[in-house]
Amino acid sequence: MITDPLEIEKKSFEIITNELNTNHIQIPKKYEKIIKRVIHTTADFEYASLFQFSDDFLTTITQAIKTGCRIYADTNMIIAGVNKHHLAKNRCEIYTLVHEPAIREEAKAKGITRSLLGMDKACQDGQTKIFVIGNAPTALFHLYKKIEEEKVQPAAIIGVPVGFVGAGESKNQIALSKIPNLIIKGRKGGSTVAASILNAILYHYL
Amino acid sequence: MITDPLEIEKKSFEIITNELNTNHIQIPKKYEKIIKRVIHTTADFEYASLFQFSDDFLTTITQAIKTGCRIYADTNMIIAGVNKHHLAKNRCEIYTLVHEPAIREEAKAKGITRSLLGMDKACQDGQTKIFVIGNAPTALFHLYKKIEEEKVQPAAIIGVPVGFVGAGESKNQIALSKIPNLIIKGRKGGSTVAASILNAILYHYL
Repeated sequence: MITDPLEIEKKSFEIITNELNTNHIQIPKKYEKIIKRVIHTTADFEYASLFQFSDDFLTTITQAIKTGCRIYADTNMIIAGVNKHHLAKNRCEIYTLVHEPAIREEAKAKGITRSLLGMDKACQDGQTKIFVIGNAPTALFHLYKKIEEEKVQPAAIIGVPVGFVGAGESKNQIALSKIPNLIIKGRKGGSTVAASILNAILYHYL
Repeated sequence: MITDPLEIEKKSFEIITNELNTNHIQIPKKYEKIIKRVIHTTADFEYASLFQFSDDFLTTITQAIKTGCRIYADTNMIIAGVNKHHLAKNRCEIYTLVHEPAIREEAKAKGITRSLLGMDKACQDGQTKIFVIGNAPTALFHLYKKIEEEKVQPAAIIGVPVGFVGAGESKNQIALSKIPNLIIKGRKGGSTVAASILNAILYHYL
């Protein structure tokens, strides 16, 4: 039995690579480390065919990270899953607003969701250059609206909410925006997927 | 477009139920709310066939929660994902040790993993009645050893680590223990899966 976590991780990625090869599943070399890490996180090989990247995504997201920026996430789970040591090394900070008591109260008073209000506030923060959405399609729809209205111009978007109502549509819409983006097509995605994408970029692309 | 989160959730579960019916996928009525919530969290219908429960699992885990207890989780992501309001209502508390600086240092000094050491310490806490493992097969292997040695006797185990090396084996082993348990067979699972199982129990089974 292997007990060293680094050995386990190495062996896991060997198994993933072998199974992709055996099953003749092609993934773009450029994004290999991102896609394999998501398969590692989910044990779900369907992700090999669900990624869609805009051409400029990797360039702009790595530049934003290397410059040091704020990253908005729509769940605490994403924040818990991201490697904070690697973020800090690049003087980056990840935050969410959806659990703030003030946001909760204001959202209630306005009759809108905390996701939407959190996104609204994050769009007003000029230092927030990256948006990572793993949960709420409404947050992603709202971000698209703000981009169209030229109220916000982030460096990159990781748009991977999971869900049965609006998730696929919200991702297809954000893919059409002028902002560099990565999406997971269809219903799949989620907080672990979002965190592992950001971790893969921190580990392998800077 | 539906924007009310409760409406979205209701519609999502209707879609899940319809697709299960349309595709003639049977799930046990008794565990329906747990299985559907995991499908809701992952958008992955394969989970319908991956659950395995010991007969006494639901009885003992709900009793432990209603009595008020400590719950050990092996990741911060699980803790971030669990509904703390519902836990607090039942005087339950969820915690992990893997990120504690003292655990980090002691693990390093002993040349063992933080997962394993965290599990070791949690097993010594008499108030910890439930273990929720979503990440580390080594933690689950170690828990099995402690149970066999009669060093710990929890009320219930949610054993759902994801992974390619040891995950399936660790879950099959814990399923053979005398402790009431729920496992996800094979490679799949993870922190979002673990959190949604615990949430489903908090929402529907108490």
